[in-house]
Amino acid sequence: MKLGIYGYGNIGKGVELACSQNKDVELVGIFTRRNKEEVKSLLGTKVYSVNELNEFKDKIDILAICGGSATELPKMTVDLAKDFNVIDTFDTHANIPEHFKNVDKAAKDNGHIAMISCGWDPGMFSINRLYANALLPNGKDYTFWGKGISQGHSDAIRRIKGVVDAKQYTVPVKEVVNKVLNGETPELTTRDKHIRECYVVIENDADKVRIENEIKSMPNYFADYETIVNFVSIEELREKHSGMPHAGFVIRSGNTGINNENKHIISYNLKLDSNPEFTAMAVIAFARALYREKMNGTVGCLTVFDIRPRDIIDLPYDELLKHML
Amino acid sequence: MKLGIYGYGNIGKGVELACSQNKDVELVGIFTRRNKEEVKSLLGTKVYSVNELNEFKDKIDILAICGGSATELPKMTVDLAKDFNVIDTFDTHANIPEHFKNVDKAAKDNGHIAMISCGWDPGMFSINRLYANALLPNGKDYTFWGKGISQGHSDAIRRIKGVVDAKQYTVPVKEVVNKVLNGETPELTTRDKHIRECYVVIENDADKVRIENEIKSMPNYFADYETIVNFVSIEELREKHSGMPHAGFVIRSGNTGINNENKHIISYNLKLDSNPEFTAMAVIAFARALYREKMNGTVGCLTVFDIRPRDIIDLPYDELLKHML
Repeated sequence: MKLGIYGYGNIGKGVELACSQNKDVELVGIFTRRNKEEVKSLLGTKVYSVNELNEFKDKIDILAICGGSATELPKMTVDLAKDFNVIDTFDTHANIPEHFKNVDKAAKDNGHIAMISCGWDPGMFSINRLYANALLPNGKDYTFWGKGISQGHSDAIRRIKGVVDAKQYTVPVKEVVNKVLNGETPELTTRDKHIRECYVVIENDADKVRIENEIKSMPNYFADYETIVNFVSIEELREKHSGMPHAGFVIRSGNTGINNENKHIISYNLKLDSNPEFTAMAVIAFARALYREKMNGTVGCLTVFDIRPRDIIDLPYDELLKHML
Repeated sequence: MKLGIYGYGNIGKGVELACSQNKDVELVGIFTRRNKEEVKSLLGTKVYSVNELNEFKDKIDILAICGGSATELPKMTVDLAKDFNVIDTFDTHANIPEHFKNVDKAAKDNGHIAMISCGWDPGMFSINRLYANALLPNGKDYTFWGKGISQGHSDAIRRIKGVVDAKQYTVPVKEVVNKVLNGETPELTTRDKHIRECYVVIENDADKVRIENEIKSMPNYFADYETIVNFVSIEELREKHSGMPHAGFVIRSGNTGINNENKHIISYNLKLDSNPEFTAMAVIAFARALYREKMNGTVGCLTVFDIRPRDIIDLPYDELLKHML
């Protein structure tokens, strides 16, 4: 499979690294919107300008689009699906149906195949929600995120006057997670399930009390959550909070039995040192499946729900029967 | 989907109950090898003799074969695949490739579709091993079973002279599970990972010391494990140990990064009050997918690895995009 990377941010870099762990993938090049002379790839992969992409129409089987979900992907994936088979990591849950429709049309109109919303949530968490719902139709779902960095919340703190830099961790409330893992089925909102832990660097003369208040009272982002604000030095922020870890749980609790007397708990848990690198590993695994679907003549937009597990792995079927089933 | 149940033991009963939670399934009947007059179904489903099965060739879409893996299924599933589309829960891991081959031939020769080894291990655990290996090719797998009843080990204790009844729980060693969940990657054998907890009822005059020794020194079953023997009354055994709970973990720990510096841990955990009832829920979900494959003209033997997640659930695709992705 010949793969191209479109956009060289954190996920783009992760995809480059992921290719090196998957022998059946040939990385053709990285395509950047920046000045290509200024972009140095981690592993020496050749960097091209996006303006050169047209010359690669017949040289790339799958193009991994590594852009932002908020404003870039809704247009980018639709446009690129006209000329390439594409995969993206679109993660704005509420807008998935619309994005799917637009990408599906562009891909079908041009005889291409596409996949949107690959990664871990959406992605592996979605698959686990689906399996758990299919197996326990009479049950209740819980998704917990964290401990992990929320980019949006970190950005929101940085916009406050006097703040130099900030990182915000979303942290699931341990007692609540344990309750659910033990089979209790409380009614919970997102804010019952998570606390927000902030590490904030401020200007020397800035007013800590005002900044802490501004954070804690910020509507939507923090006002309704238990929020902890820690003021730290720029050195400490860099040293201890520069990673991109994330984690989370998908749990479903359901019942069977003649009187629903038997409880079953299914839980799926991820602990990731690097959110973008893990996301990128998912992109490569599902790009492989997409390539196989393309070989079978499939066109249009797919999601992780359409993919047979056997198609995401680079192992022959008889090996799977022998060692994994 | 019209479903038949072949064999009415614990899993057969579970499948009957599972049908009542899945509105798209019509349960045609239970087929027993016993005298049908003596078999009373849990929910009033009509019970037939297996000798009447021939009359149902055109009335059953999928036949769920609920027999034992040790001696029954290897012959039963192959024979029945000649006349029906079938699904079984064959769980002798070492013999899966051979069973697959035999069922595949019988199904293909007769234009039928089949699935073997549906349940949780093999089944959901297998799917999770596959996804985790595909996403983290550079990593290490761990499967832990328990706490749960092992039928084979319970039977082995019952064969000892002076033993009236017994139940054996396989219990994962908590400290070892926690180590692996925290990212350590020790080399472990099955016996490092599990202890064996026995509840034994003996005849009044039986020799406890001899029986405990015979259990603890039994080769293959107990000799190499940490084994705990508890002598209990028949009343206590019935009251506290008559359920069929089971549980387990599939964990994969792997690395990414330019110097493999980032660790990722994927874990899947089940806690089941009723092993056969949960297995049966999986049977129904995958029977649904099998029925859809049959409608598409697929023949031959499949496994859970061949099934697109979307096909195991009774919800339209746009609902999945909206609420589960």
